[in-house]
Amino acid sequence: MSFINDNFLLETEQAQHLYHQYAAAEPILDYHSHLPPKDIAENRRFANLFEIWLEGDHYKWRAMRANGIPESHCTGDASPFEKFEAFAATVPHTLRNPLYHWTHLELKRYFGIDDLLNESNARRIWDQTNAQLASEDMRIWGILKKFGVKAICTTDDPADDLRWHAAIAKSDCPAKVFPTFRPDGAMHVQRPDLFLPWIEKLYETSGVSIDSFADFLKAIELRHDAFHAIGCRLSDHGLNRCFANFCDEEEAAGIFDKAREGGEVSADEFDRYASFMMLFFGKLDAAKGWTKQIHLGARRNANSRAYRELGTDKGFDSIGDAPQGDALAAYLDRLDQGDQLPRMVLYNLNPNENYTFATMAGNFQDGKIAGKIQFGSGWWFLDQKEAMEWQMNALSNCGLFSRFIGMLTDSRSFMSFPRHEYFRRTLCNLVGNDMAKGLLPNDEAMIGNMVRNICFGNARDFLRLPL
Amino acid sequence: MSFINDNFLLETEQAQHLYHQYAAAEPILDYHSHLPPKDIAENRRFANLFEIWLEGDHYKWRAMRANGIPESHCTGDASPFEKFEAFAATVPHTLRNPLYHWTHLELKRYFGIDDLLNESNARRIWDQTNAQLASEDMRIWGILKKFGVKAICTTDDPADDLRWHAAIAKSDCPAKVFPTFRPDGAMHVQRPDLFLPWIEKLYETSGVSIDSFADFLKAIELRHDAFHAIGCRLSDHGLNRCFANFCDEEEAAGIFDKAREGGEVSADEFDRYASFMMLFFGKLDAAKGWTKQIHLGARRNANSRAYRELGTDKGFDSIGDAPQGDALAAYLDRLDQGDQLPRMVLYNLNPNENYTFATMAGNFQDGKIAGKIQFGSGWWFLDQKEAMEWQMNALSNCGLFSRFIGMLTDSRSFMSFPRHEYFRRTLCNLVGNDMAKGLLPNDEAMIGNMVRNICFGNARDFLRLPL
Amino acid sequence: MSFINDNFLLETEQAQHLYHQYAAAEPILDYHSHLPPKDIAENRRFANLFEIWLEGDHYKWRAMRANGIPESHCTGDASPFEKFEAFAATVPHTLRNPLYHWTHLELKRYFGIDDLLNESNARRIWDQTNAQLASEDMRIWGILKKFGVKAICTTDDPADDLRWHAAIAKSDCPAKVFPTFRPDGAMHVQRPDLFLPWIEKLYETSGVSIDSFADFLKAIELRHDAFHAIGCRLSDHGLNRCFANFCDEEEAAGIFDKAREGGEVSADEFDRYASFMMLFFGKLDAAKGWTKQIHLGARRNANSRAYRELGTDKGFDSIGDAPQGDALAAYLDRLDQGDQLPRMVLYNLNPNENYTFATMAGNFQDGKIAGKIQFGSGWWFLDQKEAMEWQMNALSNCGLFSRFIGMLTDSRSFMSFPRHEYFRRTLCNLVGNDMAKGLLPNDEAMIGNMVRNICFGNARDFLRLPL
Repeated sequence: MSFINDNFLLETEQAQHLYHQYAAAEPILDYHSHLPPKDIAENRRFANLFEIWLEGDHYKWRAMRANGIPESHCTGDASPFEKFEAFAATVPHTLRNPLYHWTHLELKRYFGIDDLLNESNARRIWDQTNAQLASEDMRIWGILKKFGVKAICTTDDPADDLRWHAAIAKSDCPAKVFPTFRPDGAMHVQRPDLFLPWIEKLYETSGVSIDSFADFLKAIELRHDAFHAIGCRLSDHGLNRCFANFCDEEEAAGIFDKAREGGEVSADEFDRYASFMMLFFGKLDAAKGWTKQIHLGARRNANSRAYRELGTDKGFDSIGDAPQGDALAAYLDRLDQGDQLPRMVLYNLNPNENYTFATMAGNFQDGKIAGKIQFGSGWWFLDQKEAMEWQMNALSNCGLFSRFIGMLTDSRSFMSFPRHEYFRRTLCNLVGNDMAKGLLPNDEAMIGNMVRNICFGNARDFLRLPL
Repeated sequence: MSFINDNFLLETEQAQHLYHQYAAAEPILDYHSHLPPKDIAENRRFANLFEIWLEGDHYKWRAMRANGIPESHCTGDASPFEKFEAFAATVPHTLRNPLYHWTHLELKRYFGIDDLLNESNARRIWDQTNAQLASEDMRIWGILKKFGVKAICTTDDPADDLRWHAAIAKSDCPAKVFPTFRPDGAMHVQRPDLFLPWIEKLYETSGVSIDSFADFLKAIELRHDAFHAIGCRLSDHGLNRCFANFCDEEEAAGIFDKAREGGEVSADEFDRYASFMMLFFGKLDAAKGWTKQIHLGARRNANSRAYRELGTDKGFDSIGDAPQGDALAAYLDRLDQGDQLPRMVLYNLNPNENYTFATMAGNFQDGKIAGKIQFGSGWWFLDQKEAMEWQMNALSNCGLFSRFIGMLTDSRSFMSFPRHEYFRRTLCNLVGNDMAKGLLPNDEAMIGNMVRNICFGNARDFLRLPL
Repeated sequence: MSFINDNFLLETEQAQHLYHQYAAAEPILDYHSHLPPKDIAENRRFANLFEIWLEGDHYKWRAMRANGIPESHCTGDASPFEKFEAFAATVPHTLRNPLYHWTHLELKRYFGIDDLLNESNARRIWDQTNAQLASEDMRIWGILKKFGVKAICTTDDPADDLRWHAAIAKSDCPAKVFPTFRPDGAMHVQRPDLFLPWIEKLYETSGVSIDSFADFLKAIELRHDAFHAIGCRLSDHGLNRCFANFCDEEEAAGIFDKAREGGEVSADEFDRYASFMMLFFGKLDAAKGWTKQIHLGARRNANSRAYRELGTDKGFDSIGDAPQGDALAAYLDRLDQGDQLPRMVLYNLNPNENYTFATMAGNFQDGKIAGKIQFGSGWWFLDQKEAMEWQMNALSNCGLFSRFIGMLTDSRSFMSFPRHEYFRRTLCNLVGNDMAKGLLPNDEAMIGNMVRNICFGNARDFLRLPL
């Protein structure tokens, strides 16, 4: 029996039944990803397995470095095949790491390969997959069709002109593709090298001449409108922690002006400015019925040498362990007080905060929108069986699992759609095992319905995307 | 087979045996609850299922709000049946939440109902249970008898005159009922609106004219004596965190005087005053051989709008994530240094602190009283299968599980006694599974004896209540 | 079937196979312990079970105190047999505590005893084991041979003259024994009572007249050389937290001078001095290709009364809950920036930090040395089945389990070698269960090879000890 077989991850008969009868056929709504809209618009064809699979994958780089593979073969100058070969040689060393599962699930679902990847079959698999990648079915649109992807949300800068999204909308792409409003650029008051060019770009895209903080906010709001017009219904923020050191617009304007003039913004000023902006963004989302996603708890760029040499998102980030609760509570509460709390998805990166997050969500359920504050699915390092189970258990025990909007890939690669399958198998295994143990009633229709909703229906209904 | 069947939660034969042979028949000693003594004294009859089941249950409200049920049907103006119906409609959405288990266990044990509650059978179950509630057996004393409740400890204000406890003591109530000394009122130096009336009430109950801090302490001590006289052997404190910013009596008196005169007490002053008082309370308990309970780690009233509109204890509290260890250690150590450390039960609300708590208890075991510092059973959000197992595992791995005083309901409802059954099944399942796996010796008498003690005997012996 | 049987801890056939075929026969490389080199050099014979088993074991004292055993029978004046008897009486109360497993595994492996220890068989077991201890096989060298111990690393003060290590090297001891460089003495600038005598001792051992901070560093470096010459390849530090408040040598020298003259060193000065020293130690290790071990997260001497009466390491320590991430990142990063980051083993004492540690290690894998930054095996309170599984799962999910250097005893007792067996059974159970569930490929040779490496091969290759 091959490693990736029909009942992979499904320990009990109930789990198997739930997966095959209820989960497997549901469409995919990948409501958070980092897929490049340009690639989708152009229906990119991938020259080789490196392009579709390794390019930009910091999970793989981390594993390779820990296996003693030099940087040349991770992010460096080695050839695509050399890099693939180095990855293949690392795979047998990733036993028990999610990469081991993902790797073989992806090889199986995209290429029908059952071999366990290693150094000795690397060349053969490279050749075989590259040949397959040449087919029309393995261009992006073919992939989207193959995996039943109904919609994708990408991650986009408000200053982006969304031209690729416009192109996709007019194309024959089989999936709907929506942008996500991620205004990290608006926060960089301590980094004039990033902030000033961003304002310039925002001016260009919005057409608003930015002479004041009010103009700046206006320009952002116009972009929010433009995103909405093209179907965007989600925003996103990558924050190590929430900001809850609130100030009024006048004070925020002062800090903005200082930053604009290249002045040095202190940590406290940044904090106050960022707190103001996060309230502003919250209000924009609430007004349009959007869902705000907040990603909390990363500790980024821990390795200064690597940051200097390679830049960000190269696999030198880890999990932060500072308490999140107080600031998160203050932020949600401040929005709620003004009746401006949008739908939320709170993603947590430190498993020791799961119960804090799951119970915090409960404090702001308003009795109007079912599941209004979502405790988001296992994120980044937690996007694997053990931690997805923790997240689902925390949510179940402290909230309403049945209202969970489920999985997203958060991926930069078009080979990640089987993560939905991975999640669904894990979900069905968890719930099916509960049935097997008598922890849930032996009512397959009822449980199957919940499973189906978590796979797709809840996200469809909750996010209000124009599907 | 009905959902709540004989072997509910009992996965292995060993678990089933332990539960049915050793655990099930043990009496209940519910040493911490929020049951109203007045209701017990009056042997209250409940007009309907709402009164006995939904009234005051913030677990249910939280689930309902998360399910999109408006406040009118939680704490608001809707009729009792409308509220019940809204709850019933929410129940199928609580799959995997402890409410799903509790709900059906309670319906089964009180009313013999095997149906899975939902919107469509709500009316029928409402009618059936209301009819049953009219019987003598379903008044409070009948319930206490039915569930084998040997004793209950309620939670009481030192300024309370204990008249209802006196009435119970003289009544035919089949269970002993003792007050618990919970002096939260003495801490409110930052809240003159609460503090001054409390002093007034304390004066009335104690008969001590409170002209100074010394009088205040004297009056509290007299109430401690009075509680002792009526059988109280436990105190309790709801603290987000321990206080360990100690000051001498003179300084505490200064803060007391300031508060008494309506002055503004700073955060630091509050901290110092509270630290002094907690030492004072510790000494009172130690002197009389009482057990002090400390509930740590809540983050209360996170939602200001709800707090303003509805007040406290309405289901807008969550788990705090600030580290607890240093202050807890300092508090226990200070009492220990003066040989004034009473028996303790430390309840922890954040599962990530379980090991910290379990090992902290070990630092203050004095070799005189077995299990002197107890790591308390899973509390509030942790009062469910997953988290009770975590607590039992942490206690087992870092301390002596065999000395554990086990379960309490912490409940405001007379329909919560099956929580003891729920705990016992979880306990037997955990321990029985260990036997099945060979992690414990296959010696049922030895293991069964431990189980029995955790169900009842340990609490009976440890707490020294006048049973 | 006896409690400790062939398949103890091994739940599935796969687990049993892995253990018996791959793990059991691997040699032991106990790369971190607190065993006294003098005892090894002298091939100590133990007069009785107390000497070899209870002397110095704070795990047992903690359990005994929690069981109400007075201090006289823990660390006090009671006779060896009385202490043993008190321990024996406590053992049945340790069900579910790792002591219960360890106790019976040790009795079985050293003495062939299958009885479950308790008060009633204490005398018989005392007599039987004492008789056995008289044999040559039960002297230390016999024990090392019996358990297949290839090498031991002890824990040593740089100011130690290593005479016992020299004696062992010349002896017929069947295991290699290496010192570990643990320079805690160099950190005591706030404790002149400890610091000045330590400098004096360092002077005596190193022969360097210490007139300045530069001399002090020189003397330490010479000891580092001397340790290296006798085979030392590891250093170790017991730190509640990392130090990351860096200063230059001039400032550190100023603090050193102040301490040397008996001046009062502030908390901040200590922090800066300690940060400097930790960088210095890191550089020494990196230069010689050593592995640095850091033990983080303890909260020591929580009970002042016990500390005053009994001193350190008597079982009054617990788990700290302060966040570790930022300081750890800063320390590793600072070393890495100077290309002076040695191999590391990071030991974590708070399970809620497991994922923080496991992902932090990944930030500093340099692509040169496979598994360069190790997330160390479950330590102290975490050295038991539940917590070892957590550590292995965290490492697996966030890093490369296959590169894990596995178990060490960290023990003060020569009866702890079965901890390696305990670890290996837990490891094989974890991995074998994964195979049984299809989470790992059904390829016993591949998985068995990984198991074997984690038992011995990885540590042998990684630590570069002169075996």
